[in-house]
Amino acid sequence: MTQISEMQEYFDRLWPLHRSITGEGLRKSLRILKEIIPLNLSEVASGTQVFDWKVPMEWNIEDAYLLGPSGEKVIDFQQNNLHVVNYSEPVNCELSLDDLNPFLHSISDQPTAIPYVTSYYKSRWGFCLSENQRRSLVPGRYKAVIDSTLHAGSLTYGDCVVPSTENESREILISTYLCHPSMGNNELTGPLLSAFLYRKLAAQKVRRFNYRFVIAPETIGALAYLSKHGEHLKKYCHAGFIVTCCGTDDDLTYKRSRRGDATVDRCTEHVLKYFTPHIQTNYSVVDFFPEGSDERQYCSPGFNLPVGSLMRAMYGTYPEYHTSLDDKDFISLPALVNTIEVYMKTVQAIEANHTYLNTKPYGEPQLGSRGLYPTLANVRERDKQLKLTMYILNFSDGEHDLCAIAEKAGAPIWELYPIAEKLRERDLLRRISTSP
Amino acid sequence: MTQISEMQEYFDRLWPLHRSITGEGLRKSLRILKEIIPLNLSEVASGTQVFDWKVPMEWNIEDAYLLGPSGEKVIDFQQNNLHVVNYSEPVNCELSLDDLNPFLHSISDQPTAIPYVTSYYKSRWGFCLSENQRRSLVPGRYKAVIDSTLHAGSLTYGDCVVPSTENESREILISTYLCHPSMGNNELTGPLLSAFLYRKLAAQKVRRFNYRFVIAPETIGALAYLSKHGEHLKKYCHAGFIVTCCGTDDDLTYKRSRRGDATVDRCTEHVLKYFTPHIQTNYSVVDFFPEGSDERQYCSPGFNLPVGSLMRAMYGTYPEYHTSLDDKDFISLPALVNTIEVYMKTVQAIEANHTYLNTKPYGEPQLGSRGLYPTLANVRERDKQLKLTMYILNFSDGEHDLCAIAEKAGAPIWELYPIAEKLRERDLLRRISTSP
Amino acid sequence: MTQISEMQEYFDRLWPLHRSITGEGLRKSLRILKEIIPLNLSEVASGTQVFDWKVPMEWNIEDAYLLGPSGEKVIDFQQNNLHVVNYSEPVNCELSLDDLNPFLHSISDQPTAIPYVTSYYKSRWGFCLSENQRRSLVPGRYKAVIDSTLHAGSLTYGDCVVPSTENESREILISTYLCHPSMGNNELTGPLLSAFLYRKLAAQKVRRFNYRFVIAPETIGALAYLSKHGEHLKKYCHAGFIVTCCGTDDDLTYKRSRRGDATVDRCTEHVLKYFTPHIQTNYSVVDFFPEGSDERQYCSPGFNLPVGSLMRAMYGTYPEYHTSLDDKDFISLPALVNTIEVYMKTVQAIEANHTYLNTKPYGEPQLGSRGLYPTLANVRERDKQLKLTMYILNFSDGEHDLCAIAEKAGAPIWELYPIAEKLRERDLLRRISTSP
Repeated sequence: MTQISEMQEYFDRLWPLHRSITGEGLRKSLRILKEIIPLNLSEVASGTQVFDWKVPMEWNIEDAYLLGPSGEKVIDFQQNNLHVVNYSEPVNCELSLDDLNPFLHSISDQPTAIPYVTSYYKSRWGFCLSENQRRSLVPGRYKAVIDSTLHAGSLTYGDCVVPSTENESREILISTYLCHPSMGNNELTGPLLSAFLYRKLAAQKVRRFNYRFVIAPETIGALAYLSKHGEHLKKYCHAGFIVTCCGTDDDLTYKRSRRGDATVDRCTEHVLKYFTPHIQTNYSVVDFFPEGSDERQYCSPGFNLPVGSLMRAMYGTYPEYHTSLDDKDFISLPALVNTIEVYMKTVQAIEANHTYLNTKPYGEPQLGSRGLYPTLANVRERDKQLKLTMYILNFSDGEHDLCAIAEKAGAPIWELYPIAEKLRERDLLRRISTSP
Repeated sequence: MTQISEMQEYFDRLWPLHRSITGEGLRKSLRILKEIIPLNLSEVASGTQVFDWKVPMEWNIEDAYLLGPSGEKVIDFQQNNLHVVNYSEPVNCELSLDDLNPFLHSISDQPTAIPYVTSYYKSRWGFCLSENQRRSLVPGRYKAVIDSTLHAGSLTYGDCVVPSTENESREILISTYLCHPSMGNNELTGPLLSAFLYRKLAAQKVRRFNYRFVIAPETIGALAYLSKHGEHLKKYCHAGFIVTCCGTDDDLTYKRSRRGDATVDRCTEHVLKYFTPHIQTNYSVVDFFPEGSDERQYCSPGFNLPVGSLMRAMYGTYPEYHTSLDDKDFISLPALVNTIEVYMKTVQAIEANHTYLNTKPYGEPQLGSRGLYPTLANVRERDKQLKLTMYILNFSDGEHDLCAIAEKAGAPIWELYPIAEKLRERDLLRRISTSP
Repeated sequence: MTQISEMQEYFDRLWPLHRSITGEGLRKSLRILKEIIPLNLSEVASGTQVFDWKVPMEWNIEDAYLLGPSGEKVIDFQQNNLHVVNYSEPVNCELSLDDLNPFLHSISDQPTAIPYVTSYYKSRWGFCLSENQRRSLVPGRYKAVIDSTLHAGSLTYGDCVVPSTENESREILISTYLCHPSMGNNELTGPLLSAFLYRKLAAQKVRRFNYRFVIAPETIGALAYLSKHGEHLKKYCHAGFIVTCCGTDDDLTYKRSRRGDATVDRCTEHVLKYFTPHIQTNYSVVDFFPEGSDERQYCSPGFNLPVGSLMRAMYGTYPEYHTSLDDKDFISLPALVNTIEVYMKTVQAIEANHTYLNTKPYGEPQLGSRGLYPTLANVRERDKQLKLTMYILNFSDGEHDLCAIAEKAGAPIWELYPIAEKLRERDLLRRISTSP
């Protein structure tokens, strides 16, 4: 089975589940992903304090519908689980169209889109429908039924650490969120990318860093995770990514970490610059801003983790965002596969980004006597190798990491890394440790 | 009486007085301004050493004229007090036109302008006249009479402090100069702006900072003031302005303090960016340079105070500068009122520019449970409030003051300040102290 | 004799010598230059370790030729000493054209150029010839004769220090290389410029700094020099230049030191900005990169000396580079004289670049009472002098050197320097010491 058809299958299984920030839809979804990535599932009891928040009651839903004046189902949750306001309290009542109206949500200038509406922390109920559906509602008596429950249960998240093969204590964080019902780019592409990225990383023979994967409901899940692992991450998180909105054909977007010039920022921007031409994709870079997704928590001032976000079209910038139009047709699995490739290239760049120290810093070392003078037949390639060798030796002064040297040399880090390692084998360089 | 007609009245009373850096013209002018701003007048005796300078003899003048060959007054000080070189020694002599010529000052390419010429520190006498007047002088014997006196008197300046209502020891300095005879933009607009700005600030119920107003003759007056209050200002001056050239319809100009990025610089530029569109005025910003007005003293390297200058058309950049053409018609009192408004907005921005510390820096605080989640009916306004709330909380890490956060958020500080204060009331922020 | 005809004479005497990185050709060349600059010649024995390198055997060559099938000389070293691979081991053998081919070097897309090829550290022999010559070789037996010797001799370099007249211990380094056989821009223009620059500097009555001139073979010579004087230079080198490629009509190029903002960088760029308009030459500035010439050694991370390179067309950027086309016709002695002028202006700027401290930093000092108020008849010139005086006084706070102040004032340092010195004579400034 190809990667894409396997992805398609997982996508199709995950798609219809009734997810929210707690509940069985979320648990089932995590269990499906466990087939790809060996997540440890944790439960955080309703009422647990996480920083300034309390984990809410667990929400589950069986069915929901709206019967029209003539008894037909005018809205049916079974057809699209966006039809109900997420976290709706149970309801079973009759009311006139006028009385019903405040409980209905549609988008007047997107007549075919069902909006995604939630109300986690305030008791409410409601139905979401397209503006077209809404306009077709005739006056009369309606029956609203929402068969949901709210009880003292728990919030579920999954995590998993792929260990470093080099005894390194630092980690690269790959965090994504899972709580939206049937929507594609935001959000199923995030967990799918994470799971398949896990598979690639776990298959690597050598991993310099530990890789921590987190799949949790947005905001409250990230907070719950940070309340347990935040101090650890402050100490060991070397670089991290919030994975979201990564499965459309749009250009790539990198949203910087709050630090702005952390290793994750410099390496990601370096890869975007040198790698995207190979995949015929443009990209843009935006500074951190305290809106968006879970970077709001990871990059809150108390944590300020070096966590960025590598996306395609960013949340909030496309009209299908948070509506039923963000569906299977809207996303592109080949684009998602492509994004995984960019992620892989980026984490490899972070792995390669050592800071070396030239052990013979007085004058140039003699390359010829060490067999290090490039001897390729291709003159152009030989000159380039020699040039990169010179850049690496000259700037390995402890103040430039390999990514910084690559930027100076105007060449990708993956061309410098093998040269640097050869110089290291010949004892012309040694690695020194640095901070993100 | 409207503000403009009141200003007009003061302008008309101040206009004809025979001002110089010392003397009765200066004293009378200060006494008129005292009707608006309760200045304490100080006298510094002639001969007093102020840093590298000595306060010169006091100069007073009763009359001056030049009689032509046929006995008529060809130049008459009573018609325009620019006709005599400021600080001219007394003279009463007859001489030929040829001998007179070295004592005459005109501007060849501005035929209708009487130039403003001074000679404070070198004994001289002379007449200033328009090039047209000069050309009409016929050969013959002239009688030059200057009825002036130079005696060991004193230099006068006025100051006044409007106290902080919050027990703050830091000050905002508003310094302007008064020594030019009948000229409008440079300089009567400066003292008028200061006096009316005083009135507005004194009327405020709350003032975070103390406001120190200084009205002194240019250069020697600023030096005399600094010789007495310089050490105090080095300690307590949080921000300051040299008020000059602020009453024409031209675009605004902000000349930065020598520090370049002091609070006064960042706040003034922020206000110019966000406020000038509301008053249909453009603006430009120039770096500090050691020419101009009293910033030469306040920003001398030993003091280096955070003092900028917010003007309309800057001194030296318009042809009417330092001539009789800088008259009542040249200035615009509505423009002056407008400039006062910009000054008010700017000092309010400096007052609002607290540095806050997020007291719940781990993750976002929960706004809803605190009633802080914006609930405005207008969605766009609500989203904006929420966005600004997020910016304030995220960047209140002790390293960004509110002006810096406003710049990051792309919104004016006066929209952020009420939100920040609401967050402070709910104990999500606390203020910390910083330096300019 | 004019400077240019004298240069021409030296050029013609140096041109034909059989130079390499060691040997009699190098020694003879240095002895000729000694007629202009009193170099101390040093010998470094073959086999001496210099950092990571060993001084190679000394190479000398008497003759070399290739006899064709009919016995005629098809390549003759006496006609052009580029015809033999520099450092060729001796050879005397007969071989077919096919067997000969691997020992021949030409450039296919430059059919008239003999390439410059060396093999210092690997035993080899070979002939260089134009592509046209190569194409005319007919099949048959060839006789290859290279009458060279390699023996344990020594490497020769020359140096010379022109002492400061002010007891200053810091130095300005002027380093150039000498090892290329008959080529003009790279490299005879370098030693010629250095020698004639010496003459100008030695003739000056006052020299703030010591001037260290170094003429050594490229790379190994610089390494040998640094192994003896590197620690001294780390301590005392205030600014330095690698002199090369300075005799064509092209625009000037300044390659920055590795530090990028050292005194040498700021002063050279300042001079290029303000002086090149006077000599109708454009210029460009490039950041340091670890390729090129002896800056590779002087700016290796262990030394990181403040050494830049002021050139015309940079090595590697013109097609004649490292071929027989870089000949007498390619260079321009008037351009070389011009480049010397720019060097002189630059070292004068470095000499003038004092850091002054305003001794009366509180307010402006009174210029008039000290006779420092400019009294020039030309108003524009007087205003400029006054402006520069104000800039110097205001920014002489210990954090701006004169070059930085000149950049702020938008005027060349040579206009500020006499003013600064006059202020110093009047005790308004004093010099303080700083580091490069």
